[in-house]
Amino acid sequence: MNAAIDFYFDFSSPYGYLASEMIGQLSARYGRSVHWRPVLLGVVFRATGSAPLASIPLKGEYSMKDIARSARYFGLPYRRPSEFPIATQRAARAYYWLAEDDPQLAREFAHACYRAYFVDDRNIAQPEPLRDVAAALGIDAMQFEAAVGEPASKQRLNAEIEQAMARGVFGSPYFVVDDEPFWGVDRLPQLEKWLAEDGF
Amino acid sequence: MNAAIDFYFDFSSPYGYLASEMIGQLSARYGRSVHWRPVLLGVVFRATGSAPLASIPLKGEYSMKDIARSARYFGLPYRRPSEFPIATQRAARAYYWLAEDDPQLAREFAHACYRAYFVDDRNIAQPEPLRDVAAALGIDAMQFEAAVGEPASKQRLNAEIEQAMARGVFGSPYFVVDDEPFWGVDRLPQLEKWLAEDGF
Repeated sequence: MNAAIDFYFDFSSPYGYLASEMIGQLSARYGRSVHWRPVLLGVVFRATGSAPLASIPLKGEYSMKDIARSARYFGLPYRRPSEFPIATQRAARAYYWLAEDDPQLAREFAHACYRAYFVDDRNIAQPEPLRDVAAALGIDAMQFEAAVGEPASKQRLNAEIEQAMARGVFGSPYFVVDDEPFWGVDRLPQLEKWLAEDGF
Repeated sequence: MNAAIDFYFDFSSPYGYLASEMIGQLSARYGRSVHWRPVLLGVVFRATGSAPLASIPLKGEYSMKDIARSARYFGLPYRRPSEFPIATQRAARAYYWLAEDDPQLAREFAHACYRAYFVDDRNIAQPEPLRDVAAALGIDAMQFEAAVGEPASKQRLNAEIEQAMARGVFGSPYFVVDDEPFWGVDRLPQLEKWLAEDGF
């Protein structure tokens, strides 16, 4: 079996960011490619009655501590963003627009968005920081702005979110490998065992 | 530092069961003892607006799959209970009653409750299966029944739950080591790193 791994995430998800820094090397060790699929957790949460981590009593405070500690555990840079969570539809629409012509560039854009937000504390919900991320990758600013705002981009993202929910995605990061779902950066060891043993 | 590890759990929590089978050996490697502290997640969830896993759309179905897979991953026996979740105040009250005179026996009782429920599919919310667990450990049946029902046992458990919530406990398993909280069986690797390095 050599099917691609589906990687669902929200650009505002800290655990998604941590996973994004590790899934590439992990999957490559087993000859698998990864399909990155940004979604909007806000839409998903409305369907499942869930809420953003930071808003949940006790769990919210714990999570802020756990995210920073998890980053240290994995040896990844992390700075708690000043604004959290943020709306990420602009970043997600831009990702799918880029992915149509150049999946590699889209991947680099996704990495750059995550690092801008969770390492450099740039609020990528705002037009300017997001444009800066795109510009640094040589993406044309006028084309970028037009693409992010056009109805086709919104429809593409909505369709992706619907597909994700139909597949059972309810959080970020969420991986699907050979129809087997793995939720959370803390499931990467199980995902790796799955790849190593073709299921277990 | 050699302070004990506090281990909060609900007898109805499958991830708590998995953790209960591993925390003893893990802590012993670093010369730490463990204080087992059963709580009632139902009471905690009322305070945090949370709900039992099985009742949450998408997440509930995922969790049933994830629990069985996690048990295989850790090499632990597990059978999905016919009734889930269940009320565990009787088991928790019995635990604290036993712990007053004989912490070692209380620990064995806790292990036996978890295994009865998650391996042998015995509904320990019911008086008879719970009595069987106690009887197998040589605990007097009359004394046991009286202790489980007496007001002092209820008060003891309520006080423990209040203390746990004041400490921030919102799920099961939940560990506190040197004031550092770790939620979930999937945080045992971070807990171990903490013990190995006196914090990180």
